Amino acid sequence: MAREANLSVLVQKHLFHTAKLDLDVAQSIPATVGYETYGQLSPARDNAILICHPFGGTSHAAGRYGADDPATGWWDHLIGSGKAFDTDKYFVIAVDSLCNLSVKSPLVITTGPATINPATGRPYGSDFPQISMRDNVRLQYQLLQSLGIDRLVCVAGPSTGGFQALEWAVTYPDMVDRVVAVAATHQSPAIFALAVCQAGIDAVTADPAFKGGHYYDSEGPTAGLQRAAFLVSTLMHSDAWAWNMWERKTAPGSMHPRADREGRFAFQAGMAELAEALAQDWDANHFVYTARAALLHDIGYANRGLEVAAQKIKARLLLVAISGDMLFPPEASKPLAEAVNRYGGNAEVALMESGAGHSGSLQDCAWLAEPITRFLRREQMH
Amino acid sequence: MAREANLSVLVQKHLFHTAKLDLDVAQSIPATVGYETYGQLSPARDNAILICHPFGGTSHAAGRYGADDPATGWWDHLIGSGKAFDTDKYFVIAVDSLCNLSVKSPLVITTGPATINPATGRPYGSDFPQISMRDNVRLQYQLLQSLGIDRLVCVAGPSTGGFQALEWAVTYPDMVDRVVAVAATHQSPAIFALAVCQAGIDAVTADPAFKGGHYYDSEGPTAGLQRAAFLVSTLMHSDAWAWNMWERKTAPGSMHPRADREGRFAFQAGMAELAEALAQDWDANHFVYTARAALLHDIGYANRGLEVAAQKIKARLLLVAISGDMLFPPEASKPLAEAVNRYGGNAEVALMESGAGHSGSLQDCAWLAEPITRFLRREQMH
Repeated sequence: MAREANLSVLVQKHLFHTAKLDLDVAQSIPATVGYETYGQLSPARDNAILICHPFGGTSHAAGRYGADDPATGWWDHLIGSGKAFDTDKYFVIAVDSLCNLSVKSPLVITTGPATINPATGRPYGSDFPQISMRDNVRLQYQLLQSLGIDRLVCVAGPSTGGFQALEWAVTYPDMVDRVVAVAATHQSPAIFALAVCQAGIDAVTADPAFKGGHYYDSEGPTAGLQRAAFLVSTLMHSDAWAWNMWERKTAPGSMHPRADREGRFAFQAGMAELAEALAQDWDANHFVYTARAALLHDIGYANRGLEVAAQKIKARLLLVAISGDMLFPPEASKPLAEAVNRYGGNAEVALMESGAGHSGSLQDCAWLAEPITRFLRREQMH
Repeated sequence: MAREANLSVLVQKHLFHTAKLDLDVAQSIPATVGYETYGQLSPARDNAILICHPFGGTSHAAGRYGADDPATGWWDHLIGSGKAFDTDKYFVIAVDSLCNLSVKSPLVITTGPATINPATGRPYGSDFPQISMRDNVRLQYQLLQSLGIDRLVCVAGPSTGGFQALEWAVTYPDMVDRVVAVAATHQSPAIFALAVCQAGIDAVTADPAFKGGHYYDSEGPTAGLQRAAFLVSTLMHSDAWAWNMWERKTAPGSMHPRADREGRFAFQAGMAELAEALAQDWDANHFVYTARAALLHDIGYANRGLEVAAQKIKARLLLVAISGDMLFPPEASKPLAEAVNRYGGNAEVALMESGAGHSGSLQDCAWLAEPITRFLRREQMH
């Protein structure tokens, strides 16, 4: 066994099924999702931490699937023995989202438009009901109930994972002691909603191969989905990050783009490659449904506004904003923190300096270890 | 005559034609463009200021076309009697770009893919040679020569207009005393190049109605062009701006988008309307050519790098960065200023605080009056 592999826990995928998940849109569906756990649940079942994955993420938040697995889960820097979410102490759970983008990956188990509709024997396609961030939270709640867990030390996540962590604090206020939301706000910022979600949805649905979402008998809108992935991955990053990756070099095997119209810079070719790799496991409908859920995120929705939602929250909140994040500008974290503190709650905003932009919540996540460790040591609110 | 109209100069469009414009791509074309002038050229012809328009702009930088004209030019706050570019003192010129996006507007005169190719009697389409920011500068140079102007007090512009102003300082260093580049850098920032230019180009060219750029016998890729306009206008703005415009209201006549899949927020509907209005006068090829020219912008290109380009510059530079600009992050203005100052030149960076993001260079342009006035009063460098 390689020495490096010893630093990460070895994990396996579990499966959770519910016959009836109530959705925000007043429909119910049967749902099956994958999940992973790290560490041991205490006999009192009082040491559980839930990690919610971001937009293009999965339940593989930490560890490796085997000693030879070259990659670790996406927050492996933070989850494990002696790490911020210390698996010697805590039982950590991560769950695949509904309509998970990477439905084509053998390591993802999800329910969405690509799932066979029991009523017809064919994939739901666009007949699948629209899901919300809160629907994911309801599903995670059912899973926790099945494990006998009725109290969470913490719910944490970056980006749309942070959306869900905040929905937890409002939807099940008596179950959550602490919330860590990284690069996430109480509702979708407008530019994120328009540039990533709406423009991405439009790129997919405008592809003639999308066929209104019923494309499962054909190849599907691969080109439109790649354009959407290109947008998402571009806007997650920053100029500093792109410069560090590629400077202003010409793409390998290409003429200089000023000399030849087919020529490309390395950053054009590189970003297109990243997007293509990203979209390889994605399903177009799953992208559209998740992007719509992200666009619609608002913890104040059924709670009649931010003020009322803030009053429901009993958990301590740690909101981490990223300095160079163009989609979640740091000032967008303030309204929630101010509303919570106004009603006697406890919310703090921490500013993370990262040159990587929004993707700093993953790439530079080691920075989070110290503030999260400190945050978990604090006394709980109630 | 309404009193307000008196505050702006009354202007008319002029026309400049050259039989031979040499392009960066080693081809020559005949070119015709429109231009406007404000103020009087002095007998010594030594009081000229050139204003370069941004991406979706035109030569209508100031004034009104008649007393009843409801709108003024895009930098009217800065150009006129007693304003920063004082027309009592200076002769101000603004020129339509090559491949100007708004070719369908009767007030724009430009040469590009929509122009009739004299060799075939039909529109060039994608046979038109790729143009660059510097090609626009060469064309402006020819126009100035035709007016007997061989010295400029200042060249100024926002965004891609600023790109051209900087190209002026490198291409004709002995003609330019001062340059004001607002929200513009020595080369295209990567995220601007990818998210606005490349993703916009992809949205247009992926539309089946684009037909490889030869669509002039049919309607053309209207839907793709609107998607491109949606992206451009979204990313020019900021969350603060969108919130001030629409808060989180439901679009008029729509269900709440959480309750109904066809429902939309006001900010979705509003931004789509803005984009549609914007794209109404646009030609798809002209968008693609201009976006590509913007993507390729680099004053260091034929000058073999920023260091060499910086050594050529003799003009004083005022680089204005905007605090909330996600496409041109303020730190991206530093490398040019530092390189110029390292070689004994004189460049300063000013930070403009604007909640409007990149579009603050137009919307909040009144802020620029004071620094530009001060800058124009300074002694010239040589």
